[in-house]
Amino acid sequence: MFRATILYGQPKDPAEFERYYREVHIPLVKKIEGLKGFTMTKLGPNPNGELPPYYLTAALYAENQEALNAAMATPEGQAASADVRNFATGSVTFMFGEEETVIPLL
Amino acid sequence: MFRATILYGQPKDPAEFERYYREVHIPLVKKIEGLKGFTMTKLGPNPNGELPPYYLTAALYAENQEALNAAMATPEGQAASADVRNFATGSVTFMFGEEETVIPLL
Repeated sequence: MFRATILYGQPKDPAEFERYYREVHIPLVKKIEGLKGFTMTKLGPNPNGELPPYYLTAALYAENQEALNAAMATPEGQAASADVRNFATGSVTFMFGEEETVIPLL
Repeated sequence: MFRATILYGQPKDPAEFERYYREVHIPLVKKIEGLKGFTMTKLGPNPNGELPPYYLTAALYAENQEALNAAMATPEGQAASADVRNFATGSVTFMFGEEETVIPLL
């Protein structure tokens, strides 16, 4: 599966980021046709107690790169992309690649 | 599922990183008891043609944080951890959190 990874840096107001992301942004992403999966991981402190450089990482999946580009080019894809600036008060990093499964998820 | 995300920065010698990661590191990780999944994504250029800040991202899954810690504390877990310094000539960032599924992978 082709995967877009989004890394959100630590936001200025984590509680507000959390609220907006769950109440507004996720519903916008769920409207995008052609996505084959969407996972998110809210990142906790490292074992040494330090906060990681990112607050949350999200992954969007599509059949292949062309399908992902097509999904993001739809009005719903554009709306979700444009929404990022409304809550991402830290950095935003987009990365793209084919996900390989080494050990299948049980 | 609890997820450890590892972000590898761009290595000095990508071909050698690739070879070592696949031929040596992956077999070491596969020996760790208690992991419930292992995925990796080699990151391509962004749509604007720029290389992303990271070369590869990997995800290790376990039932929960305690299970992940226990798996990484085994001799096999320690061996895989210690191996990272043998190939990661760029940065290495570890991040931990519970993965949530918003849209199940099809």
